[in-house]
Amino acid sequence: MRYARCAVDGREFDAIVEHDEVVELSGSMLGAHERGPRHPLASVVLLPPVMPRTFYAAGFNYRAHNRHHTDLGYDPIKVGPHPEVGYRAQSALVGDGADIVRPADVSGRFETEAEVVAVIGSTLRNATRDDAVAGVFGWTIGNDVSAREWQHADRTLWRAKNADTFKPMGPWIETDVDPLASTTTVRRNGVVDAVFATGDMIFDPYDFIVEITKYITMHPGDVLWMGADGNTAMAPGDVIEIEISGIGTLTNHVASPVPAATPDEHLEHLEHLDHEGARR
Amino acid sequence: MRYARCAVDGREFDAIVEHDEVVELSGSMLGAHERGPRHPLASVVLLPPVMPRTFYAAGFNYRAHNRHHTDLGYDPIKVGPHPEVGYRAQSALVGDGADIVRPADVSGRFETEAEVVAVIGSTLRNATRDDAVAGVFGWTIGNDVSAREWQHADRTLWRAKNADTFKPMGPWIETDVDPLASTTTVRRNGVVDAVFATGDMIFDPYDFIVEITKYITMHPGDVLWMGADGNTAMAPGDVIEIEISGIGTLTNHVASPVPAATPDEHLEHLEHLDHEGARR
Repeated sequence: MRYARCAVDGREFDAIVEHDEVVELSGSMLGAHERGPRHPLASVVLLPPVMPRTFYAAGFNYRAHNRHHTDLGYDPIKVGPHPEVGYRAQSALVGDGADIVRPADVSGRFETEAEVVAVIGSTLRNATRDDAVAGVFGWTIGNDVSAREWQHADRTLWRAKNADTFKPMGPWIETDVDPLASTTTVRRNGVVDAVFATGDMIFDPYDFIVEITKYITMHPGDVLWMGADGNTAMAPGDVIEIEISGIGTLTNHVASPVPAATPDEHLEHLEHLDHEGARR
Repeated sequence: MRYARCAVDGREFDAIVEHDEVVELSGSMLGAHERGPRHPLASVVLLPPVMPRTFYAAGFNYRAHNRHHTDLGYDPIKVGPHPEVGYRAQSALVGDGADIVRPADVSGRFETEAEVVAVIGSTLRNATRDDAVAGVFGWTIGNDVSAREWQHADRTLWRAKNADTFKPMGPWIETDVDPLASTTTVRRNGVVDAVFATGDMIFDPYDFIVEITKYITMHPGDVLWMGADGNTAMAPGDVIEIEISGIGTLTNHVASPVPAATPDEHLEHLEHLDHEGARR
């Protein structure tokens, strides 16, 4: 089953995606709901499929990513015996079809990280591996957009990875897929830039859930981004597609900021980006 | 005005605190609402006064904190020319009166950090300092509970600062106070452990809001914890009070985990802690 969050004329609802239509749900995809009216898929805006209460992100979870890091002359990242998780900010999320806006003061490496995302479906604490497997509602796709000059200059990742529009997620949540058997393909302007086995992780999603829930309660709707194998450079004007087999394709344009505007105009513009027409 | 989030018999609502009563609100404290029935303050459970969409936290924002850090033999923290922010997890929030549970595998320094918290009231992007001042809805109190052995062993602060119950916040939001003129007092078991000028910050809350909103849209209900001047050691059995003049007092007990239980029992216990009777 494919679940999406949609907007039509500013009204937002959860939906089931069936072929080229969406079936509006009366309640949350994660709880009780009934099926309602149908809309053509092409007529709805796809929002981030879920707004997480807590937004977890694995870092340096693919061996190739770590090699890339040391190739660039940085110190090797110590990967410990247990998975370690980080956080991203909900404020940075945008949906499929939205623009990724490169801030005016980013001049260095500005990159895509293509990630599979676990969406949590139940309340988990001290989860066994079986609990973890059963506790994942489904899978979506994330682009962990990164401004490297800020990543290395700042003490935290706050703007390097969490500036507005830096966390595209979507297009929907697929419940019937084993992402550990999937392939991730990244295309820049239609040209394949990277292909890798989605499951080639150091720690898999269930390892993370078992470790996190030793200390922290995970809640329905929380998301866990699983890290990236490599990077794809981006510049304004580019179209970035991340396809994960069995899930779908997350597509976003890279844009420059709107020219200096009043704060109100800027907010209006951001709102417009949030709700811009989805493409597939 | 004092705004709180309350629970009565499992039902949750926003409220205005007036003397020893709360006035139930029909809607959100941050939006349109009407005044409803009154309840004795002593009869309601105080929840975290707001559940932030994004949970910002300033680190190393008091000179004394940085001196304490180097006194312990750690490298000095580089404080740049601009404020840098970090994040905490909503999953760790508990209200006034809830237990702080020290995990079974924490044996090293386990400490309180007493912080004033700005609660954002409007949507802010590219805020001027005047916008920032006008954009703060009110002020509350946070305890940035920290397990130091994890803080220094792990690559991120995930469990060091975000384990369940590690982020007490409350008791309420005060709108009519200038926290930069307040005094913070920390008491352990009734004995004063620290007193400092709340406003003795390297960067003040408005500096942070101006800097954050150059890159990130802040939303109503977001919280910004302002960092701590020092630390207060804690052990199970302790009562920790953080008083900020003009706001109130945040009180929490420190507890040991319940003995190994089934995951369901453990969840039930956590839920109980969340809703435990508030004290003032």
